[in-house]
Amino acid sequence: MSQDKTKEVATPALGRRKFLNTAAIASLGTLVACNEKPGSAAASASSASAAGHAASSASHLKPGELDTYYGLWSGGHTGDMRVLGLPSGREIHRIPCFVPDALVGWGVTNESKKIMGTKADGSLKYTVADSHHTHASYKDGNYDGRYAWINDKINSRIARIRLDYFVCDKITQLPNVQGFHGIFPDKRDPVDEKINYTTRVFCGGEFAIPMPNTGSEDSSKYRSMFSCVDAETMEVRWQVLIDGNCDLVATSYDGKLAATNQYNTEMGAHYEDMMSAERDACLFYNVARIEAAVKAGKFKTIGDSKVPVVDGTREANKDPKTALTAYVSVPKNPHGVNASPDGKYFICAGKLSPTGTVIDLSKVLDWFDGKSEKLDAAIVAEVELGLGPLHTAFDGRGNAYTTLFLDSQVVKWNVEAAIKFHAGDKNAKYVVDRLDVQYQPGHLNASQSETKAADGKYLAVGCKFSKDRFLPVGPLHPENEQMIDISGDKMVLMADHPVRGEPHDFIIFKRDLVRPKQVYDLNDFPNAIKDPKESGVVRNGKKVTVKMTSQAPAFSLREFTVKKGDEVTLILTNLDKIEDLTHGFAIPNHNVNFIVNPQETASVTFIAGNPGVYWCYCTHFCHALHLEMRTRMIVEA
Amino acid sequence: MSQDKTKEVATPALGRRKFLNTAAIASLGTLVACNEKPGSAAASASSASAAGHAASSASHLKPGELDTYYGLWSGGHTGDMRVLGLPSGREIHRIPCFVPDALVGWGVTNESKKIMGTKADGSLKYTVADSHHTHASYKDGNYDGRYAWINDKINSRIARIRLDYFVCDKITQLPNVQGFHGIFPDKRDPVDEKINYTTRVFCGGEFAIPMPNTGSEDSSKYRSMFSCVDAETMEVRWQVLIDGNCDLVATSYDGKLAATNQYNTEMGAHYEDMMSAERDACLFYNVARIEAAVKAGKFKTIGDSKVPVVDGTREANKDPKTALTAYVSVPKNPHGVNASPDGKYFICAGKLSPTGTVIDLSKVLDWFDGKSEKLDAAIVAEVELGLGPLHTAFDGRGNAYTTLFLDSQVVKWNVEAAIKFHAGDKNAKYVVDRLDVQYQPGHLNASQSETKAADGKYLAVGCKFSKDRFLPVGPLHPENEQMIDISGDKMVLMADHPVRGEPHDFIIFKRDLVRPKQVYDLNDFPNAIKDPKESGVVRNGKKVTVKMTSQAPAFSLREFTVKKGDEVTLILTNLDKIEDLTHGFAIPNHNVNFIVNPQETASVTFIAGNPGVYWCYCTHFCHALHLEMRTRMIVEA
Repeated sequence: MSQDKTKEVATPALGRRKFLNTAAIASLGTLVACNEKPGSAAASASSASAAGHAASSASHLKPGELDTYYGLWSGGHTGDMRVLGLPSGREIHRIPCFVPDALVGWGVTNESKKIMGTKADGSLKYTVADSHHTHASYKDGNYDGRYAWINDKINSRIARIRLDYFVCDKITQLPNVQGFHGIFPDKRDPVDEKINYTTRVFCGGEFAIPMPNTGSEDSSKYRSMFSCVDAETMEVRWQVLIDGNCDLVATSYDGKLAATNQYNTEMGAHYEDMMSAERDACLFYNVARIEAAVKAGKFKTIGDSKVPVVDGTREANKDPKTALTAYVSVPKNPHGVNASPDGKYFICAGKLSPTGTVIDLSKVLDWFDGKSEKLDAAIVAEVELGLGPLHTAFDGRGNAYTTLFLDSQVVKWNVEAAIKFHAGDKNAKYVVDRLDVQYQPGHLNASQSETKAADGKYLAVGCKFSKDRFLPVGPLHPENEQMIDISGDKMVLMADHPVRGEPHDFIIFKRDLVRPKQVYDLNDFPNAIKDPKESGVVRNGKKVTVKMTSQAPAFSLREFTVKKGDEVTLILTNLDKIEDLTHGFAIPNHNVNFIVNPQETASVTFIAGNPGVYWCYCTHFCHALHLEMRTRMIVEA
Repeated sequence: MSQDKTKEVATPALGRRKFLNTAAIASLGTLVACNEKPGSAAASASSASAAGHAASSASHLKPGELDTYYGLWSGGHTGDMRVLGLPSGREIHRIPCFVPDALVGWGVTNESKKIMGTKADGSLKYTVADSHHTHASYKDGNYDGRYAWINDKINSRIARIRLDYFVCDKITQLPNVQGFHGIFPDKRDPVDEKINYTTRVFCGGEFAIPMPNTGSEDSSKYRSMFSCVDAETMEVRWQVLIDGNCDLVATSYDGKLAATNQYNTEMGAHYEDMMSAERDACLFYNVARIEAAVKAGKFKTIGDSKVPVVDGTREANKDPKTALTAYVSVPKNPHGVNASPDGKYFICAGKLSPTGTVIDLSKVLDWFDGKSEKLDAAIVAEVELGLGPLHTAFDGRGNAYTTLFLDSQVVKWNVEAAIKFHAGDKNAKYVVDRLDVQYQPGHLNASQSETKAADGKYLAVGCKFSKDRFLPVGPLHPENEQMIDISGDKMVLMADHPVRGEPHDFIIFKRDLVRPKQVYDLNDFPNAIKDPKESGVVRNGKKVTVKMTSQAPAFSLREFTVKKGDEVTLILTNLDKIEDLTHGFAIPNHNVNFIVNPQETASVTFIAGNPGVYWCYCTHFCHALHLEMRTRMIVEA
């Protein structure tokens, strides 16, 4: 059944590219002209296959059937994290992080405001964000279900998500960083064998700025910053001053190396300058050496920040014996760097070059160890994949899957065959399959792809343009997340899912790797009202504390009285213990609404308004008498 | 295939109810005891049917296939409107209304702040909301694709959505209303035959308050308010002072009647008082008479509001010859009032009574016209349906579908058979089918159900609890929207969809009833920068205007300079004309991010921060050189 449809979509290559050119590559004419599609990539798209119908059905769960994988998705400029079930692609949850969320009262409750950060007047420091990448904590090369992290590019913040309750518990703003882009936790310690789990999170700084950022000097003197955040304390441990603009971050399975793919090593301020050089870099960080340098006091600090900064610029790291960083050369404005699940390679995609570059990590370590003279000897393959290669995922069977933004395709290619081809074996057929996607894919990821347990079952692709794939809803189109079955030789498109812009990266892992709790522990909240009898109003001058509990269908206080202008702090504990029995609490005209999940405590602080009666009501459907679940706030003159 | 699964779910009635009781009806024991399930409703649940597999497949579109229906969904306390495609249940769009939205910059741009409403200091008046009900404008008894409206219960606001661009264009706050709940547009004018389309929107006020709300007097003297808003100007035309708490609103196809289902006609302040009486009311409004009274000056105004208020209390409307309102008696705390597509009946569900009440509109008009002595003679059926009946939808073939909150079922029943049964024909079998849903359903609606063109194809049910239906994601469960095929005799469950709490009401209509535009008209924006040459910085003392355009992959200004403390207004016009080519604009550390769709203009005003370089960048993926699409804001001391 799905064959018919995909045949319609897979128009001949030339016509298709002409169509695509009208949108995403407008005014990129010269670039396209000088990057003609390589011969090796000319195999026709093979989206239709005999397995089509079966694969399509696989993503369509029957009512009540549970998904087998979780997906953690960056929310883009909604500033949150999305939790999906896969293969259905259903969004089960959104976790507010950087941006207020009116459903849960994130940015409304005192507890969430403390995590988000406030200005002197108590209002939120930021209400916008741009989250791109999310990755989770590791143990022994697989996810351990403790934490996930996510970035905010606009305001250079990193948020941590607790994967027991699926909530954000800490946010750190990085000093001396603008455009915090890529993010990746380490997988083990580079020195201590016993630490076989994540203790650091690496953060790539994209925009180059004056250091410190107080003037507007010559842009060629601007630099970017690579940061290491402590996974537990969420404090910034150290930073590295670098050349070029970080896009993504990857970490090695042995804990020794992190890398960022760097574009604009030209240090240009205008886009044509940023793409003037033919090659940029995959920039490697020698984690143990950097930490030794910091320990030895070989750092400076910048501006008001106390964070140690070591010098990782190209100029300062020419000697391999002492180098903290290594700039492996990769073609033109690379986009994406991904670690293969066998632990051997990092792969950079060319973006403005039609190539994928395979870097052998053992050879990078050889260079640091003085065993290899030429750093670029670590490049074991650089092969043509198609136009606009961006990101790469893996199936654990030796194949890589790379998005081709300009070609609107996913290309499946074999890494060892690519290495053979690069070594001179022109008979090595490294391109295994191509699949048209709809349209202009950015990130992609496969089930368990970023772990040693990559299982090559499902591939999700985030397509930036949906164009004609969904009913029209005005000028703002959804993006199109497509699910692909990669269990066979041929990729098979399973389903289209519309998604609010603009999610970027995501990870997909087996459902048994997390063990969420569904009811809170009353004792986790120091301000919990453990007994309805503790309810009441306590006045201390103009400051008033209102203590209340909820048990369907009533709040413990039937009414409470405050005075106009009082600073009221209302503490609400939900004493209902039954899973899924959440209550809400709204106060008309006082800009208050928040929820309390079973056994949760939350508080809000507000100034009582004009005299009158205000019906505070339960906003989260709880009970047959939900509409009747209210309390009256009486404000006296 | 779906048979096996539904069999598992449909456990015997008693065991199932025991299970359900643990959650939503905790502490409602006595209520359940006094409302034992009626004999007529004892037919076993029939979720499994031979049509099961086919129906299930129908909701599973193949990649690239378009939905055939739109759904407009209230967003609940996310304060927005959701746009779904059906039968797939995919969310294609969210339209920000009452609450800021970091994706589009709603609440960030000057244009959206003007619609939302600001305080004297320019900050938003409200950032929380609770939207429940959404309905669209009519012509000749079907949707005409002009507008939809949606309520905010917390702050008594009504928002209008333009269905050409799928954006909110006006918000009005209702005076003297707390807990604005139900909402419904009229379907034609009650007097002027030529006006066969929507010109009024009726708004039900739920919470009773002192009028004016300045004190805390005896709660038995509190009253609620029913409001009429002009569909074009969005000004409040008139209000009616009433007894009881409005839940939903319905309007007749002839334009003559509106109605609200009223609970708490006891005017109690505590939940046990609110359910003390055995019967409440379906409250009818005689629209022509109310407008004649307003025209004749028979009104007062309340507090600061200039809106004419007529007296619609029970006491003041005993004489049918002059009555503006009519309180038809319905059982205990009714929930939901729905107009049948044949134009004949309004149906109220009993909530705390296991009944549905069918009211014959012609007989209500007879009472107003002095042709009927007893108002309650308009009740042509009052039949037992099951426990916790809430809302009713229709298939256009004479059948009604009512959610049973406590029974976690949808009951399908035949309206004319119910009328016969009520008239004494005890052989009339009015219950046609029952289907278990998962779990505790609130609103439901069927395709085209609220129009004369009800087509009985799909039924969506908003289940308030999802419990075990999706992968666990911590204490806050999603709700479960279920799609049901109602085209045959038996209802067939098609699919489960998780949804972020807490949507309430929704409408479903054929896709050809709206004609969205996908590119804006440059001329619709008075401040549009129509030519990149108009770009630049204009200073007027401390006020600075920055004019800029976007065309992938560049902004028209490469950099711009302002001074610390300047009040900067930045105007950005997206000159890209290609559908789906949206750009974003973020300024680090200045809390600015917003999008401009093709040919759209938006502006932001902010205070320039500390001296330094700020890379403003495109946040909405647009082009292969998207990362390079930036401009530098240089802030001087």
